[in-house]
Amino acid sequence: MIRDYTDEEARRALPCKWGSVDVDVLPAWVAEMDFALAPAVEEALLDAVRAGVTGYPAFDGVDDGGELGAAYAGFAARHWGHEIDPAWVIPTVDVTAGVRFVLDVLCDPAPMVMPVPAYAPQLEVAAVTGRERVDLVVSPDAERAELDLDRLDALLAAGARTLLLTQPHNPWGRVFTRAELEGVRDVVLRHGARVVSDEIHAPLVLPGAEHVPYLSLEGTADHAVAVVAASKAFNTPGLRCAQLVVPDPAARKALLDAPPVRNDSWSPLGVVAAVAAYTDGDAWLAALVERLDGNRALLGRLLAEQLPQARMRPLEGTFLAWLDLRGHGHADPAAVALERGRVRLAPGHDYQPGLEGHARLNIATSPERLTRIVERLGAALA
Amino acid sequence: MIRDYTDEEARRALPCKWGSVDVDVLPAWVAEMDFALAPAVEEALLDAVRAGVTGYPAFDGVDDGGELGAAYAGFAARHWGHEIDPAWVIPTVDVTAGVRFVLDVLCDPAPMVMPVPAYAPQLEVAAVTGRERVDLVVSPDAERAELDLDRLDALLAAGARTLLLTQPHNPWGRVFTRAELEGVRDVVLRHGARVVSDEIHAPLVLPGAEHVPYLSLEGTADHAVAVVAASKAFNTPGLRCAQLVVPDPAARKALLDAPPVRNDSWSPLGVVAAVAAYTDGDAWLAALVERLDGNRALLGRLLAEQLPQARMRPLEGTFLAWLDLRGHGHADPAAVALERGRVRLAPGHDYQPGLEGHARLNIATSPERLTRIVERLGAALA
Repeated sequence: MIRDYTDEEARRALPCKWGSVDVDVLPAWVAEMDFALAPAVEEALLDAVRAGVTGYPAFDGVDDGGELGAAYAGFAARHWGHEIDPAWVIPTVDVTAGVRFVLDVLCDPAPMVMPVPAYAPQLEVAAVTGRERVDLVVSPDAERAELDLDRLDALLAAGARTLLLTQPHNPWGRVFTRAELEGVRDVVLRHGARVVSDEIHAPLVLPGAEHVPYLSLEGTADHAVAVVAASKAFNTPGLRCAQLVVPDPAARKALLDAPPVRNDSWSPLGVVAAVAAYTDGDAWLAALVERLDGNRALLGRLLAEQLPQARMRPLEGTFLAWLDLRGHGHADPAAVALERGRVRLAPGHDYQPGLEGHARLNIATSPERLTRIVERLGAALA
Repeated sequence: MIRDYTDEEARRALPCKWGSVDVDVLPAWVAEMDFALAPAVEEALLDAVRAGVTGYPAFDGVDDGGELGAAYAGFAARHWGHEIDPAWVIPTVDVTAGVRFVLDVLCDPAPMVMPVPAYAPQLEVAAVTGRERVDLVVSPDAERAELDLDRLDALLAAGARTLLLTQPHNPWGRVFTRAELEGVRDVVLRHGARVVSDEIHAPLVLPGAEHVPYLSLEGTADHAVAVVAASKAFNTPGLRCAQLVVPDPAARKALLDAPPVRNDSWSPLGVVAAVAAYTDGDAWLAALVERLDGNRALLGRLLAEQLPQARMRPLEGTFLAWLDLRGHGHADPAAVALERGRVRLAPGHDYQPGLEGHARLNIATSPERLTRIVERLGAALA
């Protein structure tokens, strides 16, 4: 059910991931998958293009959630038992733009707490909205990648008013447990702070872990907004439609009443793709998760053979493995991998400035390509 | 060559324009056209969807303008004799987001001058970037809609540092002459200010007028950025790819070096559509302009018959007619047109808060529909 792109197909389909490297380089950096679209998504898009659905989206219908709200609500109920009102769903252009929008409109002008290492483009979102970023850093030596609740408590006590939560976490690969999230909620409630919960990887939780939507926890509806999308799981990040989930009526009104220039750039084709993915994508998604689960196991075996000093914490969700390669003695393993191994990884310092010895490896490819990637890494780095 | 949508097709294709009104209402408000896509654009989009071009665009290749820069440069040279370096072209999600991006990154934190009436969403762009908006208002009684250079001079002398120029102008319908634009340039140069020139309607200049790109004037390269797009002329505003044209190397570097969160949301399908439109769209565009020219003449005849007190200055460009209906005694003619005439116009006060008696009428439809629209307006308003 999952169709692998040939190299030639991948170069055409994925100009960011594949077009940015020389033809002898295997790209394993940006979070795109080397897989063809789910047939339901492709068919819906072709139909929409044939019908000329290339104009503005239906701005007027946004306040009841529309078809998109209903589709997301159905998906959340089926996958996580998370019952929401479709009217809570507001489209936005993409997840990071949605985070910016929520910060600009809803959040107090005060520091924002961010778990770090973090998704690189979001490291700058606090500054772009005029806020200081204060970090919850996971030590590279920590046994488990966990949110430091004592530090969160101290940062909120010191004046921070917003937590940008990423869960499942990229690049940690963690899927936070219900108990961990309840711990976060309790600290946030104590300070009357807000949570913006980026859950773009929620459909990509792998066997053994379970996604708990932050908004499914009791007592979160009036302080949290989730930012979700079908685009990561269905390989459509260029179609430009993420969703805010906003249970609090006052927050929803503030977002809907904001000047259009803050949030009118989502695409109707992104809506079409998201509706198709959320409505008709379950079987394809199950096959995808099975593939990723298999690749996760394969990666473990390959690392043991090829890079025995590499350290990887359990990959609970996403298709992005966070590798500690300090044991092999490289300050910038991604640079060495590219030069000597002809593999493009994402350098760890993009996710945490100054961090040495780490890199992020994208496993969403064929087992054959993943094998070649890790063999090349072994030859270059071990 | 221009294929009119049936009502049913239009309702599917254009959920903003047609989906927002009851089925007995003729929509003539938002700037979308009731025409099928240019075949070259549709074919390029279908090919791209079949190939899976739904991932991130090629961020890495942006600094040389890429295929998009080359396509726009060719279009500008053929249509306006405007020779640019393709490397001046930087993609952005849409024109208004591009204006915001340029204000945030390049412009001094000082008031922004805006010709008014103005494109409604852009009335708020100054405030969203933390600036005061100061207006160059065209009196509704002016014989001709002109930029008031004395007032522009006074506003810049008083501390404004940016002019947001819209040319061709929406909703004035004006195509500024070379002499007028040179006058603007001279005032701007005297004060060392910046110009952001929104030229989204440039391909839609009608016979009798000529588009002069602001950047084609001598002495503008180091103070001006143009914001352009194929999306208005080719009916693809939902595909999310406009372009900045930035001749000044320091300005270009500042924009390219800005945090991705400020400008990474354009769509690869928008790039595909823009490249196809700029490269293979000339014949279709010529047919479109011919259609709009005919509709402009038809509108003149219909207004004379149906709304003899309506006043419309010559429509030199765009497909948006700016109607002064004060002679028929209505403070909010768009509200009356919707209620009594079942035609949705864009109310004049959206373009200039507090303005009475005006409305904007979209003529990009079939002659038959345009006739029914104006007949209904006559019955409702005259």
